Amino acid sequence: MNADKIPDIIIGRLPVYLRALQRLADKGVLNASSQELGEMIGISAAQIRKDISQFGEFGKQGTGYSIPFLIEQLRAILNVDRVWEIAIVGMGDIGHALARYNGFANRGFHVSMVFDNDSHKVGQKVGDFEIFSTNSMVEKIKQQKIKVAALTVPASAAQEIADLLVKAGIKAILNYAPISLNVPDDIHVQYIDPVTHLQRMTYYL
Amino acid sequence: MNADKIPDIIIGRLPVYLRALQRLADKGVLNASSQELGEMIGISAAQIRKDISQFGEFGKQGTGYSIPFLIEQLRAILNVDRVWEIAIVGMGDIGHALARYNGFANRGFHVSMVFDNDSHKVGQKVGDFEIFSTNSMVEKIKQQKIKVAALTVPASAAQEIADLLVKAGIKAILNYAPISLNVPDDIHVQYIDPVTHLQRMTYYL
Repeated sequence: MNADKIPDIIIGRLPVYLRALQRLADKGVLNASSQELGEMIGISAAQIRKDISQFGEFGKQGTGYSIPFLIEQLRAILNVDRVWEIAIVGMGDIGHALARYNGFANRGFHVSMVFDNDSHKVGQKVGDFEIFSTNSMVEKIKQQKIKVAALTVPASAAQEIADLLVKAGIKAILNYAPISLNVPDDIHVQYIDPVTHLQRMTYYL
Repeated sequence: MNADKIPDIIIGRLPVYLRALQRLADKGVLNASSQELGEMIGISAAQIRKDISQFGEFGKQGTGYSIPFLIEQLRAILNVDRVWEIAIVGMGDIGHALARYNGFANRGFHVSMVFDNDSHKVGQKVGDFEIFSTNSMVEKIKQQKIKVAALTVPASAAQEIADLLVKAGIKAILNYAPISLNVPDDIHVQYIDPVTHLQRMTYYL
């Protein structure tokens, strides 16, 4: 099957599989069946087998998946068998939390630069990072060839900053601002808005 | 159509529609076509019309949707024509950011209590909130009849705290810890893990 044609909803589940497998590996577990994985993450065993089989025959009847092997395969498929540098734009509370987040290590990402447009914040330190001005953002991101950015600015500034990020060569934006961004087709955007997640649950309450 | 049968993927898009409509309303716009909405949020007009028509005939040929009316309808459908109190558990960086987040207002949520298990943090203030001990969490959440919680503890503590939240009567958990939670079928969980969102994009890079 042509990898380009695999539905995005399947791609969206692979990081969840990878996370669960990594958790098992950290505990020293070497093999897992699709049933065991399914119970961990609340997805049916059949769905897991179907999703993973899109990329090859990684499991064995009887013994299930070799965890180290499947981790290696999924990391390669998701292009996180390398480290992507991230630029964070917007050093409010969420930007700070993300800059100091210790969950990126070993999962394919590393925060490289942080930016803000507030002259009072520029030059200050967040953890190991000096906050740079958004005035120098396009140039600095281009220089460092950074392709991934997290956008943690207020909604009112988000589109303008997104346009600059695109200009700087960013190809993937993790957007924490609660608005939908308009970007060219080749730019990927994922949204993190706690309220949309909460509202998806209150529907059922 | 029986509302119980509407696919969760459609429910998941309604908050995005509501957010876009609210943004237009804030600008004083009174009507929008599905085309205009679609361009704002990157979803096809046909998909928007199909999703919304599951709940009734809210649009008019020619004039499109009345924004105030559709907002009112979506708020009722998503049960956010009321305010849900939220408990936040885990006062690290993310918990702090969430406690101080100003994006809940007018969207159906209000942070009500914050908890941590660290005796050095208990009793301290985060914004207007006094941090309470997780020892008193089950009792306090029960007393206040809080049904929604945000879980911002490390992965190692998340399942244990989730079990306590279920015991306390919580029905919806917004989980920031990078693990899948095991909870009873009637408890709703949504996950916010920046790395899974990032990996979903790097697949395409």
